[in-house]
Amino acid sequence: MKWSKYFLPTIKEVPTGTEAVSHQLLLRSGLVHMLTSGVYSYLPLGWRVLSKIENIIREEMNAAGAHELLMPAIQPLEIWQKTGRDKTLEEVMIRFKNKKGTSMCLGPTHEEIITDLVKSFVQSYRQLPVTLYQIQTKFRDETRPRFGVVRACEFIMKDAYSFDTSLEGLKKNYDAMYAAYKKIFDRCGLKPIIAEADTGAMGGRLSHEFLVPAPIGEDKAKDEDGIEHQAIEVGHIFQLGTKYSEALGAVYLDEQGKQQPMIMGCYGIGVSRLISTIIEVHNDDKGIKWPQEVAPFLVEILPLQPSDPEVMGLAEQYYDELTKCKIDVLMDDRDESAGRKFNDADLIGLPFRITIGKRTLAEGKVEIKNRATSQVEVLPKDAAVGRMLALAGK
Amino acid sequence: MKWSKYFLPTIKEVPTGTEAVSHQLLLRSGLVHMLTSGVYSYLPLGWRVLSKIENIIREEMNAAGAHELLMPAIQPLEIWQKTGRDKTLEEVMIRFKNKKGTSMCLGPTHEEIITDLVKSFVQSYRQLPVTLYQIQTKFRDETRPRFGVVRACEFIMKDAYSFDTSLEGLKKNYDAMYAAYKKIFDRCGLKPIIAEADTGAMGGRLSHEFLVPAPIGEDKAKDEDGIEHQAIEVGHIFQLGTKYSEALGAVYLDEQGKQQPMIMGCYGIGVSRLISTIIEVHNDDKGIKWPQEVAPFLVEILPLQPSDPEVMGLAEQYYDELTKCKIDVLMDDRDESAGRKFNDADLIGLPFRITIGKRTLAEGKVEIKNRATSQVEVLPKDAAVGRMLALAGK
Repeated sequence: MKWSKYFLPTIKEVPTGTEAVSHQLLLRSGLVHMLTSGVYSYLPLGWRVLSKIENIIREEMNAAGAHELLMPAIQPLEIWQKTGRDKTLEEVMIRFKNKKGTSMCLGPTHEEIITDLVKSFVQSYRQLPVTLYQIQTKFRDETRPRFGVVRACEFIMKDAYSFDTSLEGLKKNYDAMYAAYKKIFDRCGLKPIIAEADTGAMGGRLSHEFLVPAPIGEDKAKDEDGIEHQAIEVGHIFQLGTKYSEALGAVYLDEQGKQQPMIMGCYGIGVSRLISTIIEVHNDDKGIKWPQEVAPFLVEILPLQPSDPEVMGLAEQYYDELTKCKIDVLMDDRDESAGRKFNDADLIGLPFRITIGKRTLAEGKVEIKNRATSQVEVLPKDAAVGRMLALAGK
Repeated sequence: MKWSKYFLPTIKEVPTGTEAVSHQLLLRSGLVHMLTSGVYSYLPLGWRVLSKIENIIREEMNAAGAHELLMPAIQPLEIWQKTGRDKTLEEVMIRFKNKKGTSMCLGPTHEEIITDLVKSFVQSYRQLPVTLYQIQTKFRDETRPRFGVVRACEFIMKDAYSFDTSLEGLKKNYDAMYAAYKKIFDRCGLKPIIAEADTGAMGGRLSHEFLVPAPIGEDKAKDEDGIEHQAIEVGHIFQLGTKYSEALGAVYLDEQGKQQPMIMGCYGIGVSRLISTIIEVHNDDKGIKWPQEVAPFLVEILPLQPSDPEVMGLAEQYYDELTKCKIDVLMDDRDESAGRKFNDADLIGLPFRITIGKRTLAEGKVEIKNRATSQVEVLPKDAAVGRMLALAGK
């Protein structure tokens, strides 16, 4: 991508009314734009981060044997009355009446809907176990939306649901999700503390929270050494048991032909919240330091004098070669000062930066900088693409 | 994917209350499930079709120089009052008051929101032109939801918006989108009639509709020979001009430092509606005939006797080899009768089927069938993977 043709508006000043570093950096590096309190657009750079995170989640969910589907946001309130959660979740539920006068709501979560769906199709123990997931937009009427996309009224979640015939089966699925979650967060550059937790409004037998220490965290987490941290909840998994299947009549016939309620688990990840969490953990006073796998682009090519044909020629050559090798490259070809470009490069924080300057190039050299470690390598211009591929693990 | 571990519930009978062939086949082949009138879940097979269509659209939009972003569904009603469309779209707009008592709505379209967003970031002619798009869920309180996902209350759209400084620029962007739309629909196996159309509630200077002839179509289209067809509108592009930029104050400074309203275009595709449209066009009395690029899987491997080690061994070998070559394969490893499996294969309609049966295998042969042409090739078992790769264009 060439910056001059892209939609990537950076902001120099710290926006007013923002406490959290991640919120400031989200806005300053052109990742999101606030429409109204707690409601955000993801600008092209933010959309890229979101899609990288979503793909990591997809890969690990599919590897764990879960199948992706997509459920609707609009839901009849009637189905929530069957579990009584029209009351327990009343505070955050957005409701309206449709044209026919039926009471509807926007899904703050999907246990009721998936249970009803699976009930429609599964009759026999031979069709179980099954684990289904979606990456989908949820709606909650938050009293105090906070910290950008950490606590928003419209946000993206990954929610998975498992259906089993035995507690052993549930435990096996639960363990598989637990393991997948560790991989997902690791690939996102996060090391959450995993804590047994209250099952709350979800109900059920047992749950684990995945908590990433951060100053803006609204949860508390004790680490291995017993020290308490403020932390952001990025994931929560539950052994639900039969609470939802019994309330909604999701039964199957067992090997003896006897009706049994399905045994359920549910597994959530706050997808959009992860963007803020990653920024909270990976930043310095100059900007974001994206972990490789979730970076919107892996490399920024920075020609210091875009009007110099030799500088720009080499920049275009690197751009083409790296793009051909399926490396995501952003080239800052804007007609801006070197200072502005360096500041913006640090701000948006791509993992690697290749700087091409007239003076260094006169010696046949260019510079590769690692944003996270600040390490700089000066190397012959013909060696840059090869070195970059090695750094990218290709 | 192995069918025995998948969530792919097929239905033998025609569901009651369904008129449209596409609606019947959507339900029968386990693509969608109705939650309530006009509101559907996409089951794993349907989700795969959706994501194939989305990726085609992404590729062509990106190739046309548009940048993907994601805007919210929740919107303050206030912004709609500025263009007067809180009134013109009142009939279909889902509204609610949030906790603070502010009037909100769910976006039935996004002209107001994108104009406000671009206004926040663009000040100078040097930042234009720019084209942005999203693939996102829209909400409309339809009086008469119909034909499955053809007319639904919650549906997925691709909506793109261009911002220019001149009418020539707008026309160039409009032509680029027109060309991209032809490619997209062609890759989806559709040949729409393109007709100049009324700009309706959208307003503006000029518009073209992309209409696919189908008996359930709610629009009328005259083809090249002047014959009138019932047709489904799958895309609509508009030269909006300055209607929205003037109402919302989206201005830029031109080369003379004078304020000018941005000149806009907008470009929609009904993404979820495309699934129904493709099925309307590509089916026979046995089921769906998916065009290759939008098929949920490209190949079905059908071992007729899964309990026979030789049959199943070869099926597994094909499955591994094709998967390694990045071919999407579904293997019907269920313990069902050959008749049931053949019927289901025709119903879900993957482009190619490799049948492995004991009798043919005794002669060292297997069968490849093309679902669209019904053409059958019997070939030596060692030639099947190579032939399949050739058919897939690999």
